[in-house]
Amino acid sequence: MSLFKKVAIIGPGLIGGSIGLALKRKRIALKVIGISRRQKTITLAKKLKAIDSGSRDIRIVKDADLIILATPVHTILRLADILKKIAREDAIIMDVGSSKEEIVARFQKLFCRYIGAHPLAGSEQQGVASASPCMFKNSLCVLSVNRKTDPSALRKITGLWRLLGARTVLLSPASHDKIMAMVSHLPHSVSFALMGTVPQGYLKYAAGGLRGTTRIAGSDSILWTDIFLSNRKNILKAISAFENNLAGIKKAIQKNNRNLLERKLRQARERRELLTRVQEL
Amino acid sequence: MSLFKKVAIIGPGLIGGSIGLALKRKRIALKVIGISRRQKTITLAKKLKAIDSGSRDIRIVKDADLIILATPVHTILRLADILKKIAREDAIIMDVGSSKEEIVARFQKLFCRYIGAHPLAGSEQQGVASASPCMFKNSLCVLSVNRKTDPSALRKITGLWRLLGARTVLLSPASHDKIMAMVSHLPHSVSFALMGTVPQGYLKYAAGGLRGTTRIAGSDSILWTDIFLSNRKNILKAISAFENNLAGIKKAIQKNNRNLLERKLRQARERRELLTRVQEL
Repeated sequence: MSLFKKVAIIGPGLIGGSIGLALKRKRIALKVIGISRRQKTITLAKKLKAIDSGSRDIRIVKDADLIILATPVHTILRLADILKKIAREDAIIMDVGSSKEEIVARFQKLFCRYIGAHPLAGSEQQGVASASPCMFKNSLCVLSVNRKTDPSALRKITGLWRLLGARTVLLSPASHDKIMAMVSHLPHSVSFALMGTVPQGYLKYAAGGLRGTTRIAGSDSILWTDIFLSNRKNILKAISAFENNLAGIKKAIQKNNRNLLERKLRQARERRELLTRVQEL
Repeated sequence: MSLFKKVAIIGPGLIGGSIGLALKRKRIALKVIGISRRQKTITLAKKLKAIDSGSRDIRIVKDADLIILATPVHTILRLADILKKIAREDAIIMDVGSSKEEIVARFQKLFCRYIGAHPLAGSEQQGVASASPCMFKNSLCVLSVNRKTDPSALRKITGLWRLLGARTVLLSPASHDKIMAMVSHLPHSVSFALMGTVPQGYLKYAAGGLRGTTRIAGSDSILWTDIFLSNRKNILKAISAFENNLAGIKKAIQKNNRNLLERKLRQARERRELLTRVQEL
């Protein structure tokens, strides 16, 4: 028996499309529909079998028992009031946005059966053309919970992510946003800044170091503008902590302090080795 | 006919060992000898066929027609006076250090046939165990030249790198150091600082973004201390430029300026696309 009868994916792009592909391939849902502002996305998602059918009209979600929001954060927030008027009262609403405090607060006010999810998967690529049904295999999915969270909806969503191949972990929206500011949003801001610093004429001398550190600077700029602004408080703290750290390295270089500089680099290297040993997600 | 009779590699590690493997496999040298402070390195380099024989005693370089310095920058600098007393008058001396101004100045004072080289290859890995004869295939090797450079030595060294599979480009030591501060040393310093910022307890939530941006923070801390200190002036300028860029992103987040932030991220993303289009080195 399928876990859901009709799943609506709003924004069937890289993440939404990957969920759709897996839902259909594993028969987790009887029917998967897609909603996008762009007809091209709907046509492509249908062709790639990420959705059975789709529309630019959001009203088609009205009889879905699971509605997934997979758009940039700003759009997720904007859709809350609209969905409230359309969705079934007993529908489970889930978003897959990368920041959670603002979204969870907004959606829990309107929906009883809302669950915030953040699959730690994806890449700098965009669109349903890069989607894959295996996107979440062996990945970690953070579910944002608090005392308002509906237990039966949480059970179903936990089951969904397990079927998609992910391990799930429960974090409060506040903890999620604090942790993600450090492990994801900070590296992205640093990567964007790094790419903005290197003069264009020097790029032909770039080797693996610059390429690796700036891969995620190729990420969607609207998506990341939304994430940064939605997690403002935490990302600003994380950037400040990073600035202090870099200033420490800079000062050791300025003062020609070999021992101090070597110690700082060695400590960073040791922590990087820890990261290698932590299970690849 | 081999290009060299006897090549001495001081520091047969990742880069020195890779040169040795290629020299022997392609029969570019009749004999390759290795010098290391550690007997373990010599034994392993011999076993892996990166050198024919080796010693902890640097005096074995006395009859080599090419001496390659492949140690950290600080050690390269320290070896100049020692080599002057041992090396043949007509031997070609080449270093493969990642910063060039200081090294070229020191060696050109002592040696007529000195060439500074910087192969833009390698990885965060270390040691001859990670060496490969294909390390330089399709890579770029910067040769540091000025009006003191001996043309016949330059011709031979250019030929050597081409045989190793690299394209060569000529840059003054000053230009080399300025460019490398941006495309290599800056990403390394940022990567070390990033890894030093993320709390250890958060590492289990890290996905591809943090892993990619901090891969090079796993690089050897002594090697990079030397590079940073040897290219102090340029790396400090590069870090300052980066700090300004990051401060711009931070300010746009602080001010909640969606348009400005999105423009900054988009510009970074466009430059990253340029980097993708530049020939992979």
